[in-house]
Amino acid sequence: MLAEIKGLNEECGIFGVWNHSQAAEITYYGLHSLQHRGQEGAGIVATDGKVLHGHRNLGLLADVFKHGELEGLKGTGAIGHVRYATAGGKSLGNVQPFLFHFSDSSLALAHNGNLINAKTLRKELEEEGAIFQTSSDTEVLAHLIKRSRTGDFLKDLKVALNKVKGGFAYMLLTENAMIAALDPNGFRPLSIGRIGDSYVVASETCAFETVGAEFVRDVEPGELIVIDDDGLHIDSFTKDIKHSICSMEYIYFARPDSNIAGINVHSARKRSGKQLAREAFVDADVVTGVPDSSISAAIGYAEESGIPYELGLIKNRYVARTFIQPSQELREQGVRMKLSAVRGVVEGKRVVMIDDSIVRGTTSKRIVNLLREAGAAEVHVRIASPPLAFPCFYGIDIQTRNELIAANYSVDEICKIIGADSLRYLSEDGLVEAIGKPYPDEPYGGLCMAYFNGDYPTDLYDYEAEYLASLAAQKNGI
Amino acid sequence: MLAEIKGLNEECGIFGVWNHSQAAEITYYGLHSLQHRGQEGAGIVATDGKVLHGHRNLGLLADVFKHGELEGLKGTGAIGHVRYATAGGKSLGNVQPFLFHFSDSSLALAHNGNLINAKTLRKELEEEGAIFQTSSDTEVLAHLIKRSRTGDFLKDLKVALNKVKGGFAYMLLTENAMIAALDPNGFRPLSIGRIGDSYVVASETCAFETVGAEFVRDVEPGELIVIDDDGLHIDSFTKDIKHSICSMEYIYFARPDSNIAGINVHSARKRSGKQLAREAFVDADVVTGVPDSSISAAIGYAEESGIPYELGLIKNRYVARTFIQPSQELREQGVRMKLSAVRGVVEGKRVVMIDDSIVRGTTSKRIVNLLREAGAAEVHVRIASPPLAFPCFYGIDIQTRNELIAANYSVDEICKIIGADSLRYLSEDGLVEAIGKPYPDEPYGGLCMAYFNGDYPTDLYDYEAEYLASLAAQKNGI
Amino acid sequence: MLAEIKGLNEECGIFGVWNHSQAAEITYYGLHSLQHRGQEGAGIVATDGKVLHGHRNLGLLADVFKHGELEGLKGTGAIGHVRYATAGGKSLGNVQPFLFHFSDSSLALAHNGNLINAKTLRKELEEEGAIFQTSSDTEVLAHLIKRSRTGDFLKDLKVALNKVKGGFAYMLLTENAMIAALDPNGFRPLSIGRIGDSYVVASETCAFETVGAEFVRDVEPGELIVIDDDGLHIDSFTKDIKHSICSMEYIYFARPDSNIAGINVHSARKRSGKQLAREAFVDADVVTGVPDSSISAAIGYAEESGIPYELGLIKNRYVARTFIQPSQELREQGVRMKLSAVRGVVEGKRVVMIDDSIVRGTTSKRIVNLLREAGAAEVHVRIASPPLAFPCFYGIDIQTRNELIAANYSVDEICKIIGADSLRYLSEDGLVEAIGKPYPDEPYGGLCMAYFNGDYPTDLYDYEAEYLASLAAQKNGI
Amino acid sequence: MLAEIKGLNEECGIFGVWNHSQAAEITYYGLHSLQHRGQEGAGIVATDGKVLHGHRNLGLLADVFKHGELEGLKGTGAIGHVRYATAGGKSLGNVQPFLFHFSDSSLALAHNGNLINAKTLRKELEEEGAIFQTSSDTEVLAHLIKRSRTGDFLKDLKVALNKVKGGFAYMLLTENAMIAALDPNGFRPLSIGRIGDSYVVASETCAFETVGAEFVRDVEPGELIVIDDDGLHIDSFTKDIKHSICSMEYIYFARPDSNIAGINVHSARKRSGKQLAREAFVDADVVTGVPDSSISAAIGYAEESGIPYELGLIKNRYVARTFIQPSQELREQGVRMKLSAVRGVVEGKRVVMIDDSIVRGTTSKRIVNLLREAGAAEVHVRIASPPLAFPCFYGIDIQTRNELIAANYSVDEICKIIGADSLRYLSEDGLVEAIGKPYPDEPYGGLCMAYFNGDYPTDLYDYEAEYLASLAAQKNGI
Repeated sequence: MLAEIKGLNEECGIFGVWNHSQAAEITYYGLHSLQHRGQEGAGIVATDGKVLHGHRNLGLLADVFKHGELEGLKGTGAIGHVRYATAGGKSLGNVQPFLFHFSDSSLALAHNGNLINAKTLRKELEEEGAIFQTSSDTEVLAHLIKRSRTGDFLKDLKVALNKVKGGFAYMLLTENAMIAALDPNGFRPLSIGRIGDSYVVASETCAFETVGAEFVRDVEPGELIVIDDDGLHIDSFTKDIKHSICSMEYIYFARPDSNIAGINVHSARKRSGKQLAREAFVDADVVTGVPDSSISAAIGYAEESGIPYELGLIKNRYVARTFIQPSQELREQGVRMKLSAVRGVVEGKRVVMIDDSIVRGTTSKRIVNLLREAGAAEVHVRIASPPLAFPCFYGIDIQTRNELIAANYSVDEICKIIGADSLRYLSEDGLVEAIGKPYPDEPYGGLCMAYFNGDYPTDLYDYEAEYLASLAAQKNGI
Repeated sequence: MLAEIKGLNEECGIFGVWNHSQAAEITYYGLHSLQHRGQEGAGIVATDGKVLHGHRNLGLLADVFKHGELEGLKGTGAIGHVRYATAGGKSLGNVQPFLFHFSDSSLALAHNGNLINAKTLRKELEEEGAIFQTSSDTEVLAHLIKRSRTGDFLKDLKVALNKVKGGFAYMLLTENAMIAALDPNGFRPLSIGRIGDSYVVASETCAFETVGAEFVRDVEPGELIVIDDDGLHIDSFTKDIKHSICSMEYIYFARPDSNIAGINVHSARKRSGKQLAREAFVDADVVTGVPDSSISAAIGYAEESGIPYELGLIKNRYVARTFIQPSQELREQGVRMKLSAVRGVVEGKRVVMIDDSIVRGTTSKRIVNLLREAGAAEVHVRIASPPLAFPCFYGIDIQTRNELIAANYSVDEICKIIGADSLRYLSEDGLVEAIGKPYPDEPYGGLCMAYFNGDYPTDLYDYEAEYLASLAAQKNGI
Repeated sequence: MLAEIKGLNEECGIFGVWNHSQAAEITYYGLHSLQHRGQEGAGIVATDGKVLHGHRNLGLLADVFKHGELEGLKGTGAIGHVRYATAGGKSLGNVQPFLFHFSDSSLALAHNGNLINAKTLRKELEEEGAIFQTSSDTEVLAHLIKRSRTGDFLKDLKVALNKVKGGFAYMLLTENAMIAALDPNGFRPLSIGRIGDSYVVASETCAFETVGAEFVRDVEPGELIVIDDDGLHIDSFTKDIKHSICSMEYIYFARPDSNIAGINVHSARKRSGKQLAREAFVDADVVTGVPDSSISAAIGYAEESGIPYELGLIKNRYVARTFIQPSQELREQGVRMKLSAVRGVVEGKRVVMIDDSIVRGTTSKRIVNLLREAGAAEVHVRIASPPLAFPCFYGIDIQTRNELIAANYSVDEICKIIGADSLRYLSEDGLVEAIGKPYPDEPYGGLCMAYFNGDYPTDLYDYEAEYLASLAAQKNGI
Repeated sequence: MLAEIKGLNEECGIFGVWNHSQAAEITYYGLHSLQHRGQEGAGIVATDGKVLHGHRNLGLLADVFKHGELEGLKGTGAIGHVRYATAGGKSLGNVQPFLFHFSDSSLALAHNGNLINAKTLRKELEEEGAIFQTSSDTEVLAHLIKRSRTGDFLKDLKVALNKVKGGFAYMLLTENAMIAALDPNGFRPLSIGRIGDSYVVASETCAFETVGAEFVRDVEPGELIVIDDDGLHIDSFTKDIKHSICSMEYIYFARPDSNIAGINVHSARKRSGKQLAREAFVDADVVTGVPDSSISAAIGYAEESGIPYELGLIKNRYVARTFIQPSQELREQGVRMKLSAVRGVVEGKRVVMIDDSIVRGTTSKRIVNLLREAGAAEVHVRIASPPLAFPCFYGIDIQTRNELIAANYSVDEICKIIGADSLRYLSEDGLVEAIGKPYPDEPYGGLCMAYFNGDYPTDLYDYEAEYLASLAAQKNGI
């Protein structure tokens, strides 16, 4: 499953609200519903129209704000961020929103996504004398804005947004406005909601249910949304757009109760499970899903196949960061903290195990083994997406093909490696159909399928050379 | 659902291991898998054959042991406890295991259950000069042992075990042995497992999967299990036994991957859902369960009724104790932290909402409302157990009928109160059949059904008067 | 100096207040001024006339109460305790005040001192069935009270107070009264003060300055002071008394701004320094004291001898429990955290170094060495008390003569061991005169001088055999 | 006394070491001895020759590094900083050393002092597009270095050092070297020491005693000290220098065991006390000093006047940041945490109270009152420095004359305000003589006396206008 690689992605969650008497508190609850998008750090910046105050720290949202820190964040506008750490980036300095104090104003900035020309931009900026205080891509935007100097903040921002490339959903906060911007491909979801006269913006619509907001519209690729005391203004920084919504949001990242481009995530997953049953039926006694992200697909598979759906795998709800990991000796003895197979359900049964994806294969192998140890007679693995063979450069941190088992082995080989009785993946077309083509006239119905077929919707900039080298290496059998 | 009342029960989880080089560590992982049975406090006591060392504190297990406290717990024997706080009892002093140092020996003691004559015993003991340092029932047993004075610890223990009445699963640890004892009705589950030459004892068999142990046998009512360096000794303190396994363990408390009296909990729940579909079918578009404990029943209802099972309600996985609760203003605005209805799934649909039980009705009302706000066209509530109309005195802390909506209102009235389109409960017989009569020749197949029908399997001792008064009051319409 | 042995003593600080609207807060500040008497744990119990609530924990007072715990301690009466851990006793269970809940009432108990027949009493009580939950002597008193059963709490308490032997200053709190009791020798100081209509009781009078109280009188040996809503009642549990005030309180423990038996501690120390100058003058360039407890004596020595007093040794004010100790490698390199010699003051000078006492000699050796490394030409050590050659059984935890350098070596030998150019001690008579004979008609003017001459003012009970054995062993040259 | 104003100064402590196997640990102990120079935050950055790793946080050094953070700071070079917060600056972002990661290298930077043209420089830099992430002056230097672009780091640094004005002692760390620089007036002390082949640099020489280093030499004004694997290199960035050592370092800030410009701080203070006795003798019974910084002067006054020196005021050693402050009601009742007058010493006595300075007068008034409440018959205040009438712009944060009582009232008026029987200050010449003219040929013997006479040794840049306005305002009697 995709959670397999530590620091796998640069997924984050962002949330903002304008014109609400409890802006920071609303942001806190909004972020809480986005916590699944990032557990390494959290922060909120609020403004009372005069100054911006912020608080951020490493850890879960609840821990970051457990000592009354919200009380210091006065005002009617706020933005917040929950962060998923990438390798090497577990530093307080990288926790967002960033808060920049200029001589005459302040700016808070939160980012979800990954820039693909950040390295180049950063080098250029440093050569011009800029000092970066974090290793985060996000800081680049602030420097670009600062250097534009048209004398008009929105113009400066548009100039800057046209220089950064890749996947980005930005939220900015100044003393006078809250601003949202989405990259020209709309890789990451970003939606607008309303609570009475207040506007909210969030990475996922599940946040709207949590804070009692109603859905207004999605932010579209290339748009610049400005929300101030005059209301909502829809502007754009580019018209050169193409929808390439990250299909992984449907498959794995987003919460099942969110809608992306009008499509409910649980329903998309369930349809993918049904499609998988049609494409890759196997005669068995029980269907089970790997919790939590593969449950919906498993329900779909069961419903379509007529094989009963059971809780064959249980995830411990109390696994936390502070947990002591078993010593080597106990690991060998089979002590496990996170996932259990349910002997009473799988013993002596032919089991269909549904997972959302296979990254490196090690987790799949472990789960197959768990089921066998609990007495499963057969284990048939069905994956509710196509083989994951290409890295993502727009916000999922798989930047080398070496890590991806499907880039290096055939399906049969993978089946043997993970120890399954059979292994089948969903087809590309099957996935696109199951999700449902939000933009039917665009390639893949408006989805990004590059992880599966290498068809990247943009140039690769900083990653081009490395990517081509990795392709060549693999062709040469390395 | 049963989690509705704060401090609802006195459920706890206990675990012990003897003859293992990593006794305290094994106990930690065993308790981890029992964390759902108690989140208010945790503790472990270990012995190296000479002394007993312990550590305990308020909080989740992972927090209690996060600063290396396990390292101080040397030795090859250990017992541990996770505790569910009852009203008024949130005190460090009540966190178990208790550790008593006598002049010539030490004793650690952990308890799951509720004594029904503790008040009387305590008063007698205090009149004889005993000093109690906690408000916990558990301390009573230690004083009873200490006062028996036959000169033989096991004899003293048997004398004491015959004096305490009610529901109890005890684990004791001395320098030389680990001891387990279960009340004559076996209200609480307790099972024995084995890892090589080591024995483990746990409240639920799910702990065995976690620590890599194989199941040996359940502890039977009235048994006294002594595990020492000579192995496992099965003794008993009374032969006057009758099986009355708490049916709530199957319905709500236990983890779905545990087996109780050989019956898998998930499977029992799923069967109760199927039976409910047979007893109380309703034409609808989707079936959804209240997470987490009602998922299995919902799957069963869907499977039997042919109505699709969907994730119509989502529980936030990151709700923690440290979470700031929404201010009054935001609560009124509809900000909610724990549970969301999935608009994309329920909007415009006729929904069957499966729950395990209704206690006071307030939570059910809130969930029905959530579904309606998310656009459900109809909400039909189906409860996978009979109406909960009588208090439990054996370990579930519902000690007054006033709290129980089913003790005070008819099913039709409850339906109106919670705002459902229809409401149906599972029948008593249906529940007993669905669970599966572990002891077919005993009343209710060996289950305790007192919450549903007032048929208590023991005298009520300290609770008798109060209980009769409450019955009388209700008859008088108060 | 006396701080030399970790866990050297059982000195503690106790404080109580009755009839004050901010009872717990007053107790907090009172304990704060007594923090020097115990840094290992702290606690406060308060009563509102109906119930007793308490909070206690390991750590400094400020840390124990840093999260608003005081707010939960409502009421107009309170007692508190700061605790000095003894070897092996660093356990939360031993932190006081203890709070006992009986069926019809509650009792809080705090103790400063050491019982010399606790072991015997404890054994007797355990044989009668009592269960002890701590390793602290203090619990014995509660069991003795509970077992007296005259039906009258004060009578029960008097019976109990006549059974315990040794050094004890007790404070008790019930719903109706605050009670103080002092052992028949008055080893430990205990004084009564007043703030308007409120009474306070404290281990040292320095607490009165801190809380704005005026001094009323000392508690006398054998007295039982009851303070309730009718005011102050002076009673006694025995008339068989003799003053034996711990001379170490004057020499080392008490704060210089406290008065004990009407004698200011700083002044007594300064006089001891003057007397030392008369008894043991040495021609030198500077006088310096080992901070903090020897400063007063050094000032006195300088004033009497005419040699300038200088800050030749500086104590780092920021040394805390959380401090990381230097690694072995750095210790060898001379890295030191606590005490520095002042090169600019001692370089090339003949230094008189005043200390209050020498226990094992290791600290003195280290300080002499510090001064030499900083360039001192000569180091003459002068000790402001006689050689410490006998253990204390009344509250200072030196219970074996083996530890005491003066019990095993002559003054000349000690001088060589610590590397001084000369070493002289104050005479016994000199010390008694310098302190000032608070009770001139009693032996040693009412002081306990047993540490210096073995003249114990009571029988030794539990310690008798061990003590005689150690004397015999030393006579035999072991 | 000078500690009177919260956030009074920008004093900090800096420390560095090069070529030591335990560089971070040595830095920790070095900073520990400098903790008196800053208690609000602490940090250390270390290098292993390849990368720079750092850790910093708000709080005391011991708290910042209590969870093993030192272990992550590998390498043989390190610099550290302890910080005194200024008003409004209590932010993690301002805690030093700052760590800048450039594309090809890294730089750590720590600063003690105050720049007087920082505002101007910052504005210029921001106009050129620089983004500042802190409100600290220190960041300015990094931007200036970065913008110099000679291609040679040391040249860039020299260019930058010639642009900043005011008081600064900098320490920098790169992968290859540790660098120290001192402003052209040498306002702040900075010294070089040696441990075998390792070099250390510290704000005060007391750190050398702590880490076992021997003194090598002071850093001189305008010098740039580079320490790398080739050893110690002495360079300079300007030859336009003049010694203006902050006299407040001798009077108040520095630890008594430090030497500044070869003069021991305790000895200078003692001489100031002696000189004060000669200039302002008063017939009295006892001399007492306000702890801790006025003790040395009090000893000197007593020695010269022949009046006995006593501990008439006691400072509670356990006052910490976490301490709960007395409620308003208790403050009025006289509850006090920090300082106590010793009744047994001052009752009925004529007291000479020595303090180092008077800032706003409120603290002096409180202490005089304390002494009177403890029974002092007369209180004669003697200040061991001249009236403090002018703000400091070089690192002591008194930037407005309004706060300074001596800028607004005559000595007689101040005497009345603080309630003393008499008040006398040390003369300017008396102070200069007592300290001892480290550079006899320079004005005031090389000391900065501007706080006393307004004779600022540099232009005032950003502060000029405000300062002149305040002078004018005062002349006009405002």
